[in-house]
Amino acid sequence: MPAFDTVVRNARVVTAADTFTSDIGIRDGRIVALGLTLDAGVREIDAAGRHVTPGGVDSHVHFDQPTGDGSIMADDFLSGTTSAACGGTTTVIPFACQQRGHTLREAIDDYHRRAGGKPLIDYAFHLIITDPTPQVLKEELPTLIAEGYTSFKIYMTYDALKLSDREMLDTLSVARNEGAMVMVHAENADCIAWLTERLLEAGHTAPRYHATSRPMLVEREATHRAIAFAELIDVPILIVHVSGREAVEQIRWAQSHGLKVYGETCPQYLFLTADSLGCDDSFEGAKCICSPPPRDKANQQVIWDGLENGTFEVFSSDHAPFRYDGPDGKRVHGDNVSFDKISNGIPGVETRMALLWSEGVRTGRITAQSFVALTSTNAAKLYGLYPRKGSIAIGADADLVIWNEGGEYPVENTRLHHNVDYTPYEGMRLTAWPAITLSRGDIVWDGDRPCGETGRGKFLRCIPPDPARPRRRKAILPL
Amino acid sequence: MPAFDTVVRNARVVTAADTFTSDIGIRDGRIVALGLTLDAGVREIDAAGRHVTPGGVDSHVHFDQPTGDGSIMADDFLSGTTSAACGGTTTVIPFACQQRGHTLREAIDDYHRRAGGKPLIDYAFHLIITDPTPQVLKEELPTLIAEGYTSFKIYMTYDALKLSDREMLDTLSVARNEGAMVMVHAENADCIAWLTERLLEAGHTAPRYHATSRPMLVEREATHRAIAFAELIDVPILIVHVSGREAVEQIRWAQSHGLKVYGETCPQYLFLTADSLGCDDSFEGAKCICSPPPRDKANQQVIWDGLENGTFEVFSSDHAPFRYDGPDGKRVHGDNVSFDKISNGIPGVETRMALLWSEGVRTGRITAQSFVALTSTNAAKLYGLYPRKGSIAIGADADLVIWNEGGEYPVENTRLHHNVDYTPYEGMRLTAWPAITLSRGDIVWDGDRPCGETGRGKFLRCIPPDPARPRRRKAILPL
Amino acid sequence: MPAFDTVVRNARVVTAADTFTSDIGIRDGRIVALGLTLDAGVREIDAAGRHVTPGGVDSHVHFDQPTGDGSIMADDFLSGTTSAACGGTTTVIPFACQQRGHTLREAIDDYHRRAGGKPLIDYAFHLIITDPTPQVLKEELPTLIAEGYTSFKIYMTYDALKLSDREMLDTLSVARNEGAMVMVHAENADCIAWLTERLLEAGHTAPRYHATSRPMLVEREATHRAIAFAELIDVPILIVHVSGREAVEQIRWAQSHGLKVYGETCPQYLFLTADSLGCDDSFEGAKCICSPPPRDKANQQVIWDGLENGTFEVFSSDHAPFRYDGPDGKRVHGDNVSFDKISNGIPGVETRMALLWSEGVRTGRITAQSFVALTSTNAAKLYGLYPRKGSIAIGADADLVIWNEGGEYPVENTRLHHNVDYTPYEGMRLTAWPAITLSRGDIVWDGDRPCGETGRGKFLRCIPPDPARPRRRKAILPL
Amino acid sequence: MPAFDTVVRNARVVTAADTFTSDIGIRDGRIVALGLTLDAGVREIDAAGRHVTPGGVDSHVHFDQPTGDGSIMADDFLSGTTSAACGGTTTVIPFACQQRGHTLREAIDDYHRRAGGKPLIDYAFHLIITDPTPQVLKEELPTLIAEGYTSFKIYMTYDALKLSDREMLDTLSVARNEGAMVMVHAENADCIAWLTERLLEAGHTAPRYHATSRPMLVEREATHRAIAFAELIDVPILIVHVSGREAVEQIRWAQSHGLKVYGETCPQYLFLTADSLGCDDSFEGAKCICSPPPRDKANQQVIWDGLENGTFEVFSSDHAPFRYDGPDGKRVHGDNVSFDKISNGIPGVETRMALLWSEGVRTGRITAQSFVALTSTNAAKLYGLYPRKGSIAIGADADLVIWNEGGEYPVENTRLHHNVDYTPYEGMRLTAWPAITLSRGDIVWDGDRPCGETGRGKFLRCIPPDPARPRRRKAILPL
Repeated sequence: MPAFDTVVRNARVVTAADTFTSDIGIRDGRIVALGLTLDAGVREIDAAGRHVTPGGVDSHVHFDQPTGDGSIMADDFLSGTTSAACGGTTTVIPFACQQRGHTLREAIDDYHRRAGGKPLIDYAFHLIITDPTPQVLKEELPTLIAEGYTSFKIYMTYDALKLSDREMLDTLSVARNEGAMVMVHAENADCIAWLTERLLEAGHTAPRYHATSRPMLVEREATHRAIAFAELIDVPILIVHVSGREAVEQIRWAQSHGLKVYGETCPQYLFLTADSLGCDDSFEGAKCICSPPPRDKANQQVIWDGLENGTFEVFSSDHAPFRYDGPDGKRVHGDNVSFDKISNGIPGVETRMALLWSEGVRTGRITAQSFVALTSTNAAKLYGLYPRKGSIAIGADADLVIWNEGGEYPVENTRLHHNVDYTPYEGMRLTAWPAITLSRGDIVWDGDRPCGETGRGKFLRCIPPDPARPRRRKAILPL
Repeated sequence: MPAFDTVVRNARVVTAADTFTSDIGIRDGRIVALGLTLDAGVREIDAAGRHVTPGGVDSHVHFDQPTGDGSIMADDFLSGTTSAACGGTTTVIPFACQQRGHTLREAIDDYHRRAGGKPLIDYAFHLIITDPTPQVLKEELPTLIAEGYTSFKIYMTYDALKLSDREMLDTLSVARNEGAMVMVHAENADCIAWLTERLLEAGHTAPRYHATSRPMLVEREATHRAIAFAELIDVPILIVHVSGREAVEQIRWAQSHGLKVYGETCPQYLFLTADSLGCDDSFEGAKCICSPPPRDKANQQVIWDGLENGTFEVFSSDHAPFRYDGPDGKRVHGDNVSFDKISNGIPGVETRMALLWSEGVRTGRITAQSFVALTSTNAAKLYGLYPRKGSIAIGADADLVIWNEGGEYPVENTRLHHNVDYTPYEGMRLTAWPAITLSRGDIVWDGDRPCGETGRGKFLRCIPPDPARPRRRKAILPL
Repeated sequence: MPAFDTVVRNARVVTAADTFTSDIGIRDGRIVALGLTLDAGVREIDAAGRHVTPGGVDSHVHFDQPTGDGSIMADDFLSGTTSAACGGTTTVIPFACQQRGHTLREAIDDYHRRAGGKPLIDYAFHLIITDPTPQVLKEELPTLIAEGYTSFKIYMTYDALKLSDREMLDTLSVARNEGAMVMVHAENADCIAWLTERLLEAGHTAPRYHATSRPMLVEREATHRAIAFAELIDVPILIVHVSGREAVEQIRWAQSHGLKVYGETCPQYLFLTADSLGCDDSFEGAKCICSPPPRDKANQQVIWDGLENGTFEVFSSDHAPFRYDGPDGKRVHGDNVSFDKISNGIPGVETRMALLWSEGVRTGRITAQSFVALTSTNAAKLYGLYPRKGSIAIGADADLVIWNEGGEYPVENTRLHHNVDYTPYEGMRLTAWPAITLSRGDIVWDGDRPCGETGRGKFLRCIPPDPARPRRRKAILPL
Repeated sequence: MPAFDTVVRNARVVTAADTFTSDIGIRDGRIVALGLTLDAGVREIDAAGRHVTPGGVDSHVHFDQPTGDGSIMADDFLSGTTSAACGGTTTVIPFACQQRGHTLREAIDDYHRRAGGKPLIDYAFHLIITDPTPQVLKEELPTLIAEGYTSFKIYMTYDALKLSDREMLDTLSVARNEGAMVMVHAENADCIAWLTERLLEAGHTAPRYHATSRPMLVEREATHRAIAFAELIDVPILIVHVSGREAVEQIRWAQSHGLKVYGETCPQYLFLTADSLGCDDSFEGAKCICSPPPRDKANQQVIWDGLENGTFEVFSSDHAPFRYDGPDGKRVHGDNVSFDKISNGIPGVETRMALLWSEGVRTGRITAQSFVALTSTNAAKLYGLYPRKGSIAIGADADLVIWNEGGEYPVENTRLHHNVDYTPYEGMRLTAWPAITLSRGDIVWDGDRPCGETGRGKFLRCIPPDPARPRRRKAILPL
C-alpha cells in the first residue's frame, strides 16, 4: 500500500524563510513527510523544476455581502472560492458583517447560511462590527472569539459602517482583553463627505473624482488616529489596504516606536493609479473605483519599498465584486451617476498571487520567501490559522501551489472564474500562473479548469493570538 | 508748550527685531517720536539703564466666562485687566463663548455687557464657536468678522464645547473664505472620556489622575487631525497651549511641509510638571489642574527649544481663574471630588511676562527680541491688532513696560491683583518685574499699585489677515 | 540751522519686526530720529508711499580673491561694492582667504591691501581657514577675533581649501572658546571626486555634468557631519548656500533638537535649476556653474518654505564673479573644457535684494519683515555688525534702501555694475528695484547711477557673539 | 540497515518562518527527511518536548587575530570554535585581516594557517580591507570573491584599520560590481581622537571614559556617512554592532527610502550599559570595554524594538577575546592604564544564543522564528552560506541545537569554554541553554562537555549574493 495519498516530487519548495528541493508526502490532506526520496504515493505529481509555495491565504475578500443599496456582489461562496482556487489561493477569510440593530450571532448565522454547501476551498470569517453595543462587547464578542471568530474589522468611514472614536476604543479594548486582531479601514469620513459635497456642487461627478474626494491626507489622518487609539489601549492592530506614502510613514513611525501596528496592502496599490479611474469623464473609470483609491507612480514605489522592507505583513486582494454592466453592479444607481453613487470595490481574488509572483518575485523586487510570507504565512499567523495554514511543514494542511513560470500569461477576464465582467488588470502580460492548486491534497485547479466537489471547503475556527505576550514598555494607564 | 504728553528718557528699547537706546515721545496716547534728544514732555519718565518693551498682548485669557456647572470665574473684566496691567500686559483678548442653541451675536452682546465699564486696559474678543449652524457659518460669522471679531476658537474636547470633524471642516472653510484665524484646542475627547472612566472605575480619583487621563498621545492625535483638516481646507490655524514633544513634532512636521500651522504655549508648560498635580492623593494638586496638563522635565525642555527655534509664535497665559477655597471655584462639586469634577484652569495673566523675561531672557535661553515677539508682537499680528498694538514704533499705541531687573521678585499670591486665592508659581524667585506699565501713555501700574480709571480700556476691532496672500502649492480640490 | 543732515520723509519703514510710517532723521551718518513731523534737514528726500528698508548686508561675497588656477575674479573691491550699492546692499563681508603655509595675518594684510581705497560701501572680512596649524588655532585666531575678524569659513570640499574632520573639530573648538561664528561649505569632497572621475571616464564633460557630479546626497552627508561636529563641540555653526530638501531636513532636525545650526541660502536655489546648466552639451551652461549646483523645481519650493518657516537666517548672494568670455574667467582652462575645469561661481551681489523683494515679498511668499531679517538684520547680528548695521533704529548707521515698486524692472546685464559679462537672471522681469541707496546718509545709488567717492566705504570690526550664553542641555564631555 | 545515520525524534522544529513537530532524519551530515514517523536511525535522539533550532551562525567573531600592540587574542580556532559549539553555534565567520602593505592573499593564507587543523565547527572568512590599493581592488578582491571570500569589513575608525572616504567609495564600488557584501564599523575616528585627547588632558583615564570618548553621535555620524556612500554607489551594506537609537534612526531612514542597508546588533547592546564600564574609576570596567560602547537602558529598549520590528537582520557576538588578568590581554600596556590603552573587545561567542533565547524568546519579546532568523538564517543568507547553513530543511547541513528550557542556567565563566578569564554576563540567570549541539550530524556539545574531533570543522566557500537583482529607482550616475 502506498505510503502517501499524494507525493509531489522534486518540488522547489518555498516557505516564508526557506527554499529547498524536496518531495512532499501527503496523507489525509496533510503534509506528513519531506525528503528527497519519499516512498510512492497513490498519486504522484511531478514538480521537477517548479516552485511550490503554500496555497494563498486571502484574508481580505468580500463574498455575497449585502450592500444595502440594491447592488449585488457578483461572487457568492462558490464563484468566489472557485476563482480563488484557480489563482492559487486555498484559504479565504471573507467578512460576516453585522447589521446595525442586529447581533453578531445573526451575522454569523447569516453568513454560514450563505456559505453553506458552496465553498471549494477552506474559509474562516472576520466579523465586521458596526454596532458595538454593551451586549455585543461584553457578551457576544468574547463568546464568538472563543468559538473561533478571532478577528474583526472596524471602519472609520462609510455611514452604514463607521464607528465613533469612542466605539473604536471600546472595541479595541475587547480585542486587547480577549486577544483578538482588529483590522481598521482608515479613512476620515467627514473629510470625504465634505470634499464630495464640494465636488458635486462644482459639477465634478465623473468616476475619477472618486480619487479626488479621498486624498492621501484623509487616509493619513485616520491611520494616525487608529494608531493613537491602539497605543492608548495597548493592543495590536492591522491597517488594511494601505495605499501610499503618507500612511506608510505613520505605520513605520509606530513600528519604530515599538508599537504592534501591522500593515496590509493590495495589488491595486502596486498596479493601478488614479489615472486608472479615467483621465476624462468617461464612466469606464468606475471599474477601478475602490477605497482608498489608487494613487500615483511615486506612491506605488513606496508600496513596493514597504513590501521589501517589512512594513507590510499582508498582501490581500480586497476582492469586492461588482459587475460593470447590468443594473445590480457599478450602475445600481444608474448609468453615468456621480462617483459617490457607484458601487465601491474591485475584483482581484484570482489575480493576486500571480501578479505578485510575476511582478514582485520574478523581477527581483522581493524574494520568493517574502512572497510566501506576504500572501500566506503572515495572514495565517495573524488570524489564528497557523500552523494548519500558511506553510509547507510537517503537519500542515497540504494546501499548495505548483507554479508555471517562464511563459506568458496574459490577464484576460475571459480566462478568470469570478462572476465579474471585467478585471482591472486586463491585458497585463504576467510571467507566471499557478499550474496546479492543491487544497488539503485535492487538486482544485489543474491549470485548465477548477476541480473538486462544490462545498468541499471547510469552515475554519481561528485560534486567537496569545494575549499573554507582554509587550508594553510603559502603560498609559496605571491599572 | 511741551512737544509731548510724556517722554520716556534713555530707554533701552526692545522690539521683536531690535534693541536700541532712545527717548520715546508720546502724544495723544501714541508713540510719535523716537530719538536721542527729544524735546520735553509734560511728564518725563527716566528709563536710563532699563529695558522698555511693548506692553504684553495676552491673547488667551478667560474672564467672567459662564461655566455651566455653577462655578464662577474669579476674575471679571476689572480684576482680570487690573491683574494683567500689573504684570505688564496692556491688551487682552478674552473669549466670547457661544452657548449652543444661541447666536454668536448673543454671545458678543453678553460679553460686551460683562466688560462694560470695567477694563483697565484695551481688549478685543475671540469667539468660541460651539454650534456652527448654517446660519452661524453663512451669516453671522462673515458679518462679525467684518465687524472686527476676526478670530475664533474651536474645541476638540469638552462635551459642551467640542465640534465634530465635519463641523470643524465647515468652520475652517469659513475662516479660509473670510480670512479669519482659527485657534484649536487639540485633545481627543473620546480618549479622555474612556481613560477617565477606567480611572474612576479603579478608584483613581485624586487630582493627579487628571494628568493620567489626558496623556500626550491624546494631544498628539488631535493636533495631527487638526493639521490634516487645515491642510485639506488650505487655511492657517493656531494650535493653542501646546504642552510637549509629541504635539511639537506634529506642528514642526506641518511647518516643514509648507503649511501655515502656528503654535502657542503657556507658562505652565515651562514651569510646572505633572508632579505639580501631586505625588499623592492630596487635593492640593487641584490648583494645577489645567488642560492639557503639564508634562515632565523633558517636555519642558522641548517647549523651551520650541520657543528658541521658532516653532511657537505666541506665549499666552490661558488664564482661567478659579479659587481653590470656597464653594464656587475648584470645589464647586464639593471637597475631594474626583479629578474630572474639579474646575479646570489656572490663573496666570499677571505672572506671564515676568516669568518669561526672568527665566527666558535673563538666563540666555531666548533673546529679548524673541520675548517681545512671543509675548506681544506676534499675537498682535496674528489677531489683527497690529500695528496699533505689539510694537514700539511711530504711530503705535504707547503701551509700554519699563522693567525692573536685577533684584529679586518673589512670586507671592498676596502681591498679585487677580481675584484667585493662589498662584501655581508661589515661591518662585524671579529676577525681573515690571516697574511701570503704560497703556496708551497712561500709567496703569506704577510698580506698587494699579493706577488709572476703571473702564478706561477700549474695545479693539481686529483687522482680518489678508486672505489674498497666495500660499498653496497644490490644491487638494480642483475648484 | 537744520536739525538733520538728511531727512527721509514719510517713509514706509520696514524693520525685521515692524512696518510703520515715519520720517527718518539722519545726522553724522546715523539715524538719530524717527517721527511723523521731524524738523528740516539739509537734504530732504521724499519717500511718500515708498518702502524703506535697511540697506542689505551681503555676508557671502567673493571679491578679488586669488583662485590659484590663473582665473581672475572679475570684481575687485571697487566694482564689487559699486555693484552691491546699486542693488541696495550697503555692507559686504567678503572673504580673506588663508593660503596654506601662510598665516592668517598675511591673508588679512593682503586683503586690506586689495581693498585699500576702493570700497564704495562698508565692509568687514570673514577669514577662510585652510591651514589650521597650532599657531593659527592658539595664537592667530584668538588675536584676530579680538581685533574684529569674528567669523570664519571652513570648507569640506575643494582640495586647496578643505579641512579634515580633525581640523574641523579643532577649528570649531576655537570658535567655541572665543565666541566666533563658523560658516561651513558642506559637500563631501571624496564623493565629488569619485563621481567626477566616473563622469569623465564616460565622456560626460559638458557643464551640466557639474550638477551630476554633486548630487544632493553629497551635500546632505556633509551637512549631517558638520552638524554632528558642532553638536560634539557645542558651538553654533552656519551652513552656507543650502540648495534643497535633503540638506534642509538635516538642518531642521538639528534645530528641532535644540542645536544652534543656522542656514543660509542664495538666489540661485530659488531661481535656477540644474537645467540652467544646460539640457544639452552646450558650454553656455558654464554660466550657471556654482556649488552646490541648483537642483529642481521641487527643491526650489523647499527653499521657499525654508525662508518662510524660519529654517534660514540668511539670504546671501555668494557672488563669485567670473567672466564667461575671455581667457581669465570661466574659460581659464580653455574653451569647452570639461566641467571640472570651469571656474566655479556665479555673480549676484547686485540682483539679490531686488530678486527677493520682487519674487518673495510682492508675491506674498514672505513678509517684508522677513525680507529685512533675511537680507540684512540677521547677518548683521550673526556676524557682529549689529546694531550698527541691519536696522532702521535710533543710533544705527543710516544705511537705507528706498524702493521703486510697481513698475517693471527687467534684469539685463547691461544695466548692472559688476564687471562680469553676464547675469544668470538675464531677462527676468522684476517688479521692484532700489530707487535710492543710502550708506551712512550718503546717496551711493540714485536710481540711475552709482554715486559717492571711491574708497568712502569703511572697514568694520565685528563684535563676537557672546560665548557666555548658556545653551547646552547635556554636555558630551564632563569637562 | 537503518535509513538514517541519526534521527532526532519528535522535535519541536523552529525555522525562520515556521514551528512544527517532526522527526529529523540525517544522513551523511545532511538533513534528508522530515516527517512524523521516520524510519530508524543508527543513532536516535529523543527531542520530545524540546525546541530544535538551526545551529547558530555567528558572523562576527575574532579568533587569533594579531593586534599589533602585543596583546594576544585569548581564543584561537580551537578554543573559539569549541566555545561556540558549546553555546549552540555551528558556523563561525571570523576575520582575515589585511595588514597594510600586504596583500589580501597573504592575509587569507595566514589565517588558513592559523585555523589549520583546529576548528571544531565549520567556518568561513570575512576579509578586512585596510589597504585598498588598485591591485587589491582590481585584481585580488574579484579573484577572492570568486573563490568564496564574498564579504569584507571596512573600518571608519582605528588608525591601523580605517579607510578614507575615497577608499570606502572605491571598495564599495568593487562590492557592487562583484556582488559582495560589505560590513561597516561606523564610528568617526577624528571625533573619538579629539574627545580622547580632551579626556586625557583632564585626567579622565578610567575605563568608564571609554564610553565618554565614543558618544552616540560619533556612531550616528559615521552611520549616516556610510549610508550616503552606499546610496551613491548603489550597493547594499551592513552596519555592524549597532548600539542605540541615533544609529537605528539612520538605518531605518535608509530602509524607509528603499535602500538596502542591513543592521547587526550584539548582546552587549541588550544586556550591558555604560555603567557596566564602572561608576567609579575602578579598572574592573575594562572587562566591558568594546566599541561602540554599551549605552543606557533607553537605548537597550530601542535595540529590542529593532530586533522586533525588523530593523536588524543579524544578531552576532563580536567575540573579541582578551583576558582581564595577565600581561597580554586587557592589561597589555600595564595595570590601570588609561582607557585608550586597554584592549578593546569582549567575549561572547558561547553566550550569544542562550542570552537571546532566554531573554528574547522566553520573555515574549521576539518570536522563536525571529530568533532563528537573527542568529542563523539571515547571516547564512547575507554571507552566501545558505541553504547549506541557516535552516532545518531538506538538503541543509544537519547543524542543530536541541534546547534545554525551564530550568535555571546561571552564566558562570567557569562553565564556559573560551579561553577568556571572565564573561561580562557573569551571574545572569538564564532560563535556557543548549542541551545538544549537532554539527553536520555530529554531536559537538552534549550538554556537559564539547565532543568531536579537533579540526573536524570545514572551511566554507561563500557564494556571493546575486548582483543582478535590480533595485535602483534612480541612478545617481547616468552611466
